[in-house]
Amino acid sequence: MKTVLRRYAAILGNLRNTRDRFCGGYKENPSTMEMLQRAASIPHVTGIELVGSWDIRPNNVKEMKMALSDAGLTCVSIIPDLFAHKRFWKGSYSASNSGVRQLALDYTRKMCDIAGELNCKTLNIWPGQDGYDYLLCSDYERAREWLCESVGTLAIEFPEVQFALEYKPKEPRTHSYLARMADTLLRAQDTGRPNVGVTIDTGHAFVAVENVSEAIVLAKRAGNRLFHLHFNDNYTTTDDDMIAGMVHSVCYIEMLYWLDRCGYKGWFSMDQYPYRENAVNAIGESILWLRQFDCVVQKHRQQIDQLVAADDAVATSRFLRSVLFQC
Amino acid sequence: MKTVLRRYAAILGNLRNTRDRFCGGYKENPSTMEMLQRAASIPHVTGIELVGSWDIRPNNVKEMKMALSDAGLTCVSIIPDLFAHKRFWKGSYSASNSGVRQLALDYTRKMCDIAGELNCKTLNIWPGQDGYDYLLCSDYERAREWLCESVGTLAIEFPEVQFALEYKPKEPRTHSYLARMADTLLRAQDTGRPNVGVTIDTGHAFVAVENVSEAIVLAKRAGNRLFHLHFNDNYTTTDDDMIAGMVHSVCYIEMLYWLDRCGYKGWFSMDQYPYRENAVNAIGESILWLRQFDCVVQKHRQQIDQLVAADDAVATSRFLRSVLFQC
Amino acid sequence: MKTVLRRYAAILGNLRNTRDRFCGGYKENPSTMEMLQRAASIPHVTGIELVGSWDIRPNNVKEMKMALSDAGLTCVSIIPDLFAHKRFWKGSYSASNSGVRQLALDYTRKMCDIAGELNCKTLNIWPGQDGYDYLLCSDYERAREWLCESVGTLAIEFPEVQFALEYKPKEPRTHSYLARMADTLLRAQDTGRPNVGVTIDTGHAFVAVENVSEAIVLAKRAGNRLFHLHFNDNYTTTDDDMIAGMVHSVCYIEMLYWLDRCGYKGWFSMDQYPYRENAVNAIGESILWLRQFDCVVQKHRQQIDQLVAADDAVATSRFLRSVLFQC
Amino acid sequence: MKTVLRRYAAILGNLRNTRDRFCGGYKENPSTMEMLQRAASIPHVTGIELVGSWDIRPNNVKEMKMALSDAGLTCVSIIPDLFAHKRFWKGSYSASNSGVRQLALDYTRKMCDIAGELNCKTLNIWPGQDGYDYLLCSDYERAREWLCESVGTLAIEFPEVQFALEYKPKEPRTHSYLARMADTLLRAQDTGRPNVGVTIDTGHAFVAVENVSEAIVLAKRAGNRLFHLHFNDNYTTTDDDMIAGMVHSVCYIEMLYWLDRCGYKGWFSMDQYPYRENAVNAIGESILWLRQFDCVVQKHRQQIDQLVAADDAVATSRFLRSVLFQC
Repeated sequence: MKTVLRRYAAILGNLRNTRDRFCGGYKENPSTMEMLQRAASIPHVTGIELVGSWDIRPNNVKEMKMALSDAGLTCVSIIPDLFAHKRFWKGSYSASNSGVRQLALDYTRKMCDIAGELNCKTLNIWPGQDGYDYLLCSDYERAREWLCESVGTLAIEFPEVQFALEYKPKEPRTHSYLARMADTLLRAQDTGRPNVGVTIDTGHAFVAVENVSEAIVLAKRAGNRLFHLHFNDNYTTTDDDMIAGMVHSVCYIEMLYWLDRCGYKGWFSMDQYPYRENAVNAIGESILWLRQFDCVVQKHRQQIDQLVAADDAVATSRFLRSVLFQC
Repeated sequence: MKTVLRRYAAILGNLRNTRDRFCGGYKENPSTMEMLQRAASIPHVTGIELVGSWDIRPNNVKEMKMALSDAGLTCVSIIPDLFAHKRFWKGSYSASNSGVRQLALDYTRKMCDIAGELNCKTLNIWPGQDGYDYLLCSDYERAREWLCESVGTLAIEFPEVQFALEYKPKEPRTHSYLARMADTLLRAQDTGRPNVGVTIDTGHAFVAVENVSEAIVLAKRAGNRLFHLHFNDNYTTTDDDMIAGMVHSVCYIEMLYWLDRCGYKGWFSMDQYPYRENAVNAIGESILWLRQFDCVVQKHRQQIDQLVAADDAVATSRFLRSVLFQC
Repeated sequence: MKTVLRRYAAILGNLRNTRDRFCGGYKENPSTMEMLQRAASIPHVTGIELVGSWDIRPNNVKEMKMALSDAGLTCVSIIPDLFAHKRFWKGSYSASNSGVRQLALDYTRKMCDIAGELNCKTLNIWPGQDGYDYLLCSDYERAREWLCESVGTLAIEFPEVQFALEYKPKEPRTHSYLARMADTLLRAQDTGRPNVGVTIDTGHAFVAVENVSEAIVLAKRAGNRLFHLHFNDNYTTTDDDMIAGMVHSVCYIEMLYWLDRCGYKGWFSMDQYPYRENAVNAIGESILWLRQFDCVVQKHRQQIDQLVAADDAVATSRFLRSVLFQC
Repeated sequence: MKTVLRRYAAILGNLRNTRDRFCGGYKENPSTMEMLQRAASIPHVTGIELVGSWDIRPNNVKEMKMALSDAGLTCVSIIPDLFAHKRFWKGSYSASNSGVRQLALDYTRKMCDIAGELNCKTLNIWPGQDGYDYLLCSDYERAREWLCESVGTLAIEFPEVQFALEYKPKEPRTHSYLARMADTLLRAQDTGRPNVGVTIDTGHAFVAVENVSEAIVLAKRAGNRLFHLHFNDNYTTTDDDMIAGMVHSVCYIEMLYWLDRCGYKGWFSMDQYPYRENAVNAIGESILWLRQFDCVVQKHRQQIDQLVAADDAVATSRFLRSVLFQC
């Protein structure tokens, strides 16, 4: 059994207060530095993702750099805030309003500069407001073109940055422009740049009725474009952002196998929204589940190689029962 | 063609600012009285629903009564706020904590008193936080019992109030205790009181993969327990709270037919969440769609009587083409 | 740890050839007696369900009785064929055509007689064709009334038979009249007879977006009306009839816990449709999965009691990790 | 208003008997020539699609050619039967068994030859069995490679044939390899041939939770790869193959608009499975619905141009109400 290096991270914002459209806040509001300390306390976490504006701004880069260093944490990605500010309410890179598109571009450039200062090589781009709510209200062709142009421009200007496009089929819009792995790959290819790739958020993929393992294979075939991973779980119709492993099981085992087969070397980052749970513990649970699933994969890799070649559901069932707790 | 009286209403809160878990506010924050004036300006609206605490409190009942009177509006229902306050984050009537259950009960009693002062006969009960997020974390039997007990107690104490239980399968919890028409009817029957019934929110029913028309029939058979109606539309997996008629068409025609057949005499209330639309116009559109659909039903009632008896999809298709999107 | 008696069964037809609307047959066609021998060979199987007309008819009752006795199998239920014959293509008990309704009734009476001869106390009623495909084509009120009348009549005539109504939200119709636990309970109650209850098919419940555990509680509260259980698994949007445990895990653990808490004493019957798998092995796998899940429940019942009272997702996660996929 | 040429077709097999996994046949079994006459009798139908083996074989090409000519029908596409024969039960072009893959290739070559004889330029490829049912049973990477290789080989050998890949997310497998527009485009591009494109089946797209209009735009951007269209309707979770227009309305109006904007010049082919309806009438209804929707698009094209640029849901709602029946 070959040792596979795994590096675990968390998104700082996951430790923030939680809210929904009904309730303005289920918890308390910790400071950025309190959140950083809590994140650092989660077993196995060595990386952190920062949301632009919320966690990281031009005026706190130095402070953050030092704080990360003190906490022994690497900045794994910066996530520009293209979704929480009212000005992007009808889109950022694909907004009809050219001023808004320019603003999105300029803002992301600043985040790229900050990434450089923090030695962070990945920008995780989630343009959550880029989409539409009603039919017959949007020019899909023009919007798609604008989105590709913006990302392409950034990729040329910042060749050392990996732009990892995070797809999600819906929410906050009823339809998002980056909806699934395959359409996001088409857009990444449209830019013609090798530093444009994809982030899989497992929950987004479940809502998209994707098999994550197939998505991983697609990204490999399209030029090794899987840049980043966000882990969480849900009941497949809403992005519930739950503890990974509490709904799906076999699915995680399968995806860990395919990540290795497709040569993924990036981070395993937790992206939850623990509405009513203690965030440190809930994020910690996801990592512990993943480590258990991963152990199954590492220990039985050869057997799994045979199972995926054999196309025999009963044999796979027997194997899975054998690695379930024997009671 | 017999004239059927229709009375249209709106929920005051639909004119408020909108937000989601990402963005804290997409619009501006109007005052209660501004909202009331806007609601009154929507063509055909003669009734209003008020959310407890937000719109109506012991300290503004008199002012509200006068404002409604000045605006020529009837108070159609009061919706106790059992969903937006942190204290009910893990449930209200079914919370494990007995203090919280008592609080929910006492708070609703106050709302019943206010309803009396406003000559409002309906309490629209949406216990949105009563449910659960993860499996193996809740005692469904005990929770169900508590919920029935609380509602039953209120129904005995306020026999002149109609308690209309509004069901919804999920959001804000991943699973709600009042999920669909049939399980809500079982609970209404459990209370043993005739003044406990149900509110259909059309969008909640779509998410629940219910046919609203069947739900209407179920409520009739269970002792005429359809007390109230909320209209909106969505793409069937999320409660998008859109303009009614922008996604579903035939479905609304069918439900208007069955409402009459089952003798529904209550209000048609709009319940939308127009994230990025002008609320007055968006709510107005729903009413205009419903009036067009309703006109089809009133004009062709006899033909529809024949179609629902005939079980002939081609005949129904011909009829629908003759009344929809003719060019 | 108290020993809980479990009795496992299989539906004979699961061992038959498989087909879909595209392909007329994926396997070979064994004889009824071959199927019986194969069923008897599945470890832990001691009961069998027979489909009317296909497996059991007035002219083979004696032969079947002897064959079951020879194989050491109990006849657990008879499933009248209300779904595979063209004459019921638009419904059986609720068909618009009164001759068809009469036929359905008379045919079921024959099956009740046969049940008596086989000492089988349960009729598993799945009126799969009773529903509709298009909106505005059916009289839901009349259909519901007819269905209740028919079942009520049977329940009066055969008071020693348990009529277990099996619900399913769709397929073969786009909408079924017996769709979910709660609406089926309303219908069972409408008959006014204690010998009308419900069968949960776990896969049907998944497609209905039900939590099976809540369905079990509902049935208990409605007068202990859970009469029978069919086990299989799926991806929640189609009745894939897969090996139980290959998609859902926690869900089965939870439902086994609630079955005991609600006092279920009936059979655990496997109902799969192993399109491309060896049926004996695929059915056997389901039983082995259930036995593993069940062992977890029996061994840790007290801890689960505490977890469902505690409402703490992290604690439940810790527990589940300790019993699932440990490495 | 510019006249846009529309050509309507039907799939011959839609007029055949219907069945599902429960019932072996809901109707009677007409001969191929009877079906052809019935198809020719559907108003506006001038094209026909033939299913390989079932409708067209080397031994009936001449007869079919003459019959089509007599009926005044064009052969719009040939659909190789890669889904109904047991030998392809675990896949055709992507089967693990190399003999099966060879068989699929050779069989399709024969169908290409027949297409040549019938002056039919399109092969509609629906590899319905190419996919999987259980996780951890298949080598997605190898299967994808094999599928691309096979299609690429055919595209090189038959450069005058358009290979239109028809995607569908599930059924008969729980997961299909050609699942959605975007992943199918990736595969078409992988072949490196311009004569590999895509068929949109509107019902398959609904089940895939795609917006068909976006799929049309994607295909245009990927090199004008939308080759063919199949129309039908459903409730979005199952491929119900219903009359187009009986569930969705606005969606069809939008897609007709985008087909023109993206320069689609191909056929509008009906692909239904009228389980319990008269096939001629049910297919005819779909065409009549489409013509009504199309008339709206042709008459109001400029207004729709403005609406898709305006991003104003209320304006779109007003427009749609104005083209709905004014009652």
